[in-house]
Amino acid sequence: MIETGRVTVPTDVDVIDATIEIINRWKADAIRDCDGTDMPEELRKMDIKQYATYYTTRKDNAWAKANPDEIQQMYLMSDFVTAKSTELKIQIMQHFYKDQLKPNTKDNHRWWEVIDRTTDEVITNWDYDEETGEVIIHDTIPYHAYTVSFLAFVIWDPVHMYNALTNDWQGEEHQMTFDVRQPKTQKYVLDKFRKFCEERDDVDVVRFTTFFHQFTLQFDEFAREKFVDWFGYSASVSPYILEQFEKEVGYPFRAEYIINKGFNNSTFCVPTKEYRDFMDFQQREVSKLAKKFVDICHEYGKEAMMFLGDHWIGTEPFGKYFESIGLDAVVGSVGSGTTLRLISDIKGVKYTEGRFLPYFFPDVFHENGDPLKEAKVNWVTARRAILRSPVDRIGYGGYLKLALDFPEFIDYIEKVCDEFRTLYSHVNQQVPLNLLKVGVINSWGELRRWGTHLVHHAIWYKQIYSYTGVMEALSGFPFDVHFISFDDIRKDPTILDDMDVVMNIGSAYTSFSGGAEFDEPVITALRRYVDQGGGFIGVGEPTAINRNGKFFTLYDVLGVDKELGFTMHTDKYNWQVHPDHFITEQLEHEDWGECVNDVYALPETEILAEKDLHVNLAVNEYGKGRGVYMNGLPFSFENVRLLYRAIFFAAHKEEEMKRWYSDNYNVDINVYPSTNSFCVVNNTYEPQTTTVYKGDGTSFEVELDACEIKWFEI
Amino acid sequence: MIETGRVTVPTDVDVIDATIEIINRWKADAIRDCDGTDMPEELRKMDIKQYATYYTTRKDNAWAKANPDEIQQMYLMSDFVTAKSTELKIQIMQHFYKDQLKPNTKDNHRWWEVIDRTTDEVITNWDYDEETGEVIIHDTIPYHAYTVSFLAFVIWDPVHMYNALTNDWQGEEHQMTFDVRQPKTQKYVLDKFRKFCEERDDVDVVRFTTFFHQFTLQFDEFAREKFVDWFGYSASVSPYILEQFEKEVGYPFRAEYIINKGFNNSTFCVPTKEYRDFMDFQQREVSKLAKKFVDICHEYGKEAMMFLGDHWIGTEPFGKYFESIGLDAVVGSVGSGTTLRLISDIKGVKYTEGRFLPYFFPDVFHENGDPLKEAKVNWVTARRAILRSPVDRIGYGGYLKLALDFPEFIDYIEKVCDEFRTLYSHVNQQVPLNLLKVGVINSWGELRRWGTHLVHHAIWYKQIYSYTGVMEALSGFPFDVHFISFDDIRKDPTILDDMDVVMNIGSAYTSFSGGAEFDEPVITALRRYVDQGGGFIGVGEPTAINRNGKFFTLYDVLGVDKELGFTMHTDKYNWQVHPDHFITEQLEHEDWGECVNDVYALPETEILAEKDLHVNLAVNEYGKGRGVYMNGLPFSFENVRLLYRAIFFAAHKEEEMKRWYSDNYNVDINVYPSTNSFCVVNNTYEPQTTTVYKGDGTSFEVELDACEIKWFEI
Repeated sequence: MIETGRVTVPTDVDVIDATIEIINRWKADAIRDCDGTDMPEELRKMDIKQYATYYTTRKDNAWAKANPDEIQQMYLMSDFVTAKSTELKIQIMQHFYKDQLKPNTKDNHRWWEVIDRTTDEVITNWDYDEETGEVIIHDTIPYHAYTVSFLAFVIWDPVHMYNALTNDWQGEEHQMTFDVRQPKTQKYVLDKFRKFCEERDDVDVVRFTTFFHQFTLQFDEFAREKFVDWFGYSASVSPYILEQFEKEVGYPFRAEYIINKGFNNSTFCVPTKEYRDFMDFQQREVSKLAKKFVDICHEYGKEAMMFLGDHWIGTEPFGKYFESIGLDAVVGSVGSGTTLRLISDIKGVKYTEGRFLPYFFPDVFHENGDPLKEAKVNWVTARRAILRSPVDRIGYGGYLKLALDFPEFIDYIEKVCDEFRTLYSHVNQQVPLNLLKVGVINSWGELRRWGTHLVHHAIWYKQIYSYTGVMEALSGFPFDVHFISFDDIRKDPTILDDMDVVMNIGSAYTSFSGGAEFDEPVITALRRYVDQGGGFIGVGEPTAINRNGKFFTLYDVLGVDKELGFTMHTDKYNWQVHPDHFITEQLEHEDWGECVNDVYALPETEILAEKDLHVNLAVNEYGKGRGVYMNGLPFSFENVRLLYRAIFFAAHKEEEMKRWYSDNYNVDINVYPSTNSFCVVNNTYEPQTTTVYKGDGTSFEVELDACEIKWFEI
Repeated sequence: MIETGRVTVPTDVDVIDATIEIINRWKADAIRDCDGTDMPEELRKMDIKQYATYYTTRKDNAWAKANPDEIQQMYLMSDFVTAKSTELKIQIMQHFYKDQLKPNTKDNHRWWEVIDRTTDEVITNWDYDEETGEVIIHDTIPYHAYTVSFLAFVIWDPVHMYNALTNDWQGEEHQMTFDVRQPKTQKYVLDKFRKFCEERDDVDVVRFTTFFHQFTLQFDEFAREKFVDWFGYSASVSPYILEQFEKEVGYPFRAEYIINKGFNNSTFCVPTKEYRDFMDFQQREVSKLAKKFVDICHEYGKEAMMFLGDHWIGTEPFGKYFESIGLDAVVGSVGSGTTLRLISDIKGVKYTEGRFLPYFFPDVFHENGDPLKEAKVNWVTARRAILRSPVDRIGYGGYLKLALDFPEFIDYIEKVCDEFRTLYSHVNQQVPLNLLKVGVINSWGELRRWGTHLVHHAIWYKQIYSYTGVMEALSGFPFDVHFISFDDIRKDPTILDDMDVVMNIGSAYTSFSGGAEFDEPVITALRRYVDQGGGFIGVGEPTAINRNGKFFTLYDVLGVDKELGFTMHTDKYNWQVHPDHFITEQLEHEDWGECVNDVYALPETEILAEKDLHVNLAVNEYGKGRGVYMNGLPFSFENVRLLYRAIFFAAHKEEEMKRWYSDNYNVDINVYPSTNSFCVVNNTYEPQTTTVYKGDGTSFEVELDACEIKWFEI
């Protein structure tokens, strides 16, 4: 059993002694600096692994100021403005934060795009007035709406800005971000990095935060977040990069490939071919350049660690170029089981690290804050996923000084560190026993493994929580979870045959439900798969596109469709709820999340839950296979169990469910054949008792304290 | 004051004395027979107006049997059936009632259509097996879904079938319907009708029930209603008619023009050009032929009355050919204020008659039935609309014998008859004072005046009640209500300028919301109209089509849009509800009907009601005009008032609202300048008091008994 290590502690010049105390109490083996903190000289010689955050694109305003053309750029879209006469002036920066973003007016007729959004036509007859900041569009058609897509320099790095505002850093110079992709800056930054490596032999691990391009993060005129997309490529652009792209793909670049009608290519849009081309190009180029930095690290005997966040765009850890970067480690913020697996499932690195929450910032660590509660929820939530696919290390970030004021928090994290080390000794990097194979089908497939329905990292949105609950449940199941894109299915429909159950989860027309992706090859592949014995679970508005008389394209598999008003004329008699069913055996309180509304059952379908003439849960036999429909599944342990039962039902494996199974749905079982162990885990903050069924079907009773894990030999 | 008359009583051979008693008590001036009853010989000589129901298309099975080719036909669509191999057999009549419908197999390759619904392609390689009733489709593609659209003879008239089943008519021969459009049958039926007129000089009014084509009404294998569309043209077809149509329009007919992907051209579908062509053709031809019958009536000194229902397809009373029929009267079933005005607003006839509910059938008039309650609700509901646009007569239908067992019902109707005559003496056929002009915009315009969101005559559906509440409110408002089609706007956008407020009401993509109808001319016309001072009220998913970055096309006018998931990345800060507003001043209990969900306000919009991050009511200033958004408005007097206030607000006429106004929203005021009178109406079943504001702004208190109307001089 490993008794120490696997833990990283943040430090700063004002907490030297305390750092040492915390290292001892948490049995940490690494310390780190953070944005806004420095590694104290006194600790640099300490016999402990030293991480140094490294920012390739900022913390060097002198360079940024000397090379204003090489400041990072972002594609922005102005407001939609409706013309009321034949000339329209659009204040392009209205509702943007002018201290963050500054229009790049050079060659604007080449890189900017004025669009008539009423007719979707590109307008060329316009000028830009530098003085007023207005685009003047000539010969506008009254009552058409227009937008301007334009390039702007990121004159205040969004992460630095967020940190500065959150911590109320007074008098802090705004850090500008420069574009390391451009040759002059690239040479400068690489040289500077080499110098850093040379000078800082105390540093064992360079923690890149991160590489070159920030995910899309724009602020409004009140310095509030205006637009955020954790997957957004809007800020990975510059004429230099775009010209390279044009050469490679052989067609001219358009701002609209990024802006995409004003969505800034949200991950919820089914990606266009051009956007996929651009992403692929960026991933390759970013990986190539990141490798140069990593190689320097290695040259100096240091490890290279990437922070999965902030300037991570282009590195997509499940993309095809990631492994070529040659990183030693990835560290990322853990907001849930799903986001834990965003990190822990990464292949091609030596180790992964989860930076747990809360971050030691004053937004949580203040007089009325409850960091202990946040830490408990964060740990217990993530633990479900760690037990399936562990990170190799855990750590914290921010100002240690703030945390020291909360001794109960410090105590709790001490326990967490011990618990993590114990479970890691069982789980290690082995594959735990997986009982079933489940595929999640969407436009992104493995590229966005565990990144489905994510707007801003682990943040709640009304439109996603009914779906993220499903992903969160999956992140802790003893299943081998695959992410399958529609393209994967088109290329080789037989990949489905390897799955016990496939799922399609999301709102109509989004990249997660699929919309127009449901073309002939995809439809026939999925019908064949289920007909021949596969299981299909649809959540929300699965397979939906209003076409050819139906809304749910796989209405026949799911046994339900949604009434949009066009088929009200057909009488619907099937409303009887069947109360006794394998899936709902343990269902006590129904919580289906946001109401999709108007879902009705076809005549042969068995309804398991219904409210106000809307079906929430239904099952359907389809050939040798089965379809299951669910309205939505907000995260709760009861819903987790419901999904577990639904997956075994859809897979036609009800008989096999009570193997490595806990009768009490607040308790999980995880099995590790390689260490001949299994654990029984209480996921709640209250004591639990349960009957545990082992792999041979025999059972025994277990009592667990709040949050407790008990370990057993198989 | 008219003290007698304006009332029609149903009779039968078994209630001769009772009929006379009822005539006296109700002061009726007309009697009628019904489907399943006969006019007693003893009453035929009575000095009272005599109606005789007349069925042009049925009650003559001898003719139908002798001419089986001329039985009416209907387009049916089989189930969607998914192929699992390269041959597919579809039992076309599965889930249809075989005693109602029988496939017409003649020339089936010309008139039937087999469609691959996965690819929307027409399939020609198929055969029909008469013996098994199967269409055998060859070379099917596995896992594509197929349908067969086919012609079937209507071997049991749907209305006769409904009546026979409802009344449990034992041993009743199924009445077949023949097609009066075809020359042989047409000659026969016209001759027969002339003979009827000749023989029955006791008949004063021929009550056609109705002309030639039943609205779409199909029954399933259990003789339950399977499909119903009160506006459906599916049963107005035959090869004879379709060949005429082809000649006229110059392009070949396709079953798909009627079937339309399986919707059977529900009124909720935005109509295609071909469907509009077909409707127009049918209306003209039906009107031409109906005129022949009407002319015969007149030749024999009889009045011609049309029942607006059953076989009414093609007569569309607000269509351009209706007046040419030359009818004397229209009678229709009154299920609400809206359906009252479907009748009372008809122009080009001498008088209209409302047949009130309940119909004297055993489904209501049985031991545990409460016909009195139904009658009260029906009368008080319809009365709001009568006071705006009166029918000239009222009446009842069914078996008088059944009603006689409910003396309280007979008493109540006696009062209703008196009340009707009193109000008619004030209202007459004059136009009451209209305070505002309101336009309802949808695909149908005046053609479907008051027929919006109607599936089956006045029947509740989950998907419509939030919209029909708006229409019901409008049916009793002192406003001049226009119905404007998108084509009307395209032809002449200035028609909008005449309106104080225009409304767009319905679910996304339906013909009532508009979907693809929101093209450039419509968008710019509406924006201009509001910008220059007009009012625009959107209910539900107004102007919605997912296009060019927005869902509500007039997001800028309405000040709201609906989040489909693609713009979650844009932060939404405007959630503050403004509790004090002109519109919501009297709002006590919020009932917005079915939740549209995910509607959010743009930054400048004023939210008046919101729940769970969904805006239910919001207002927006747009140039000189105003936009108002509402989630939905189920019918209640509180919601009626809310809409009333919203319309005055949108019209920028808040100051003028308290003219001819009742402070208590359960009480209406109606003003009749031509008779120098106004009335104060209690719409509830409890006593009410209210402050009445007159046209000059002066006010006085009024107390009213339950349901009471008080009349005053202006």
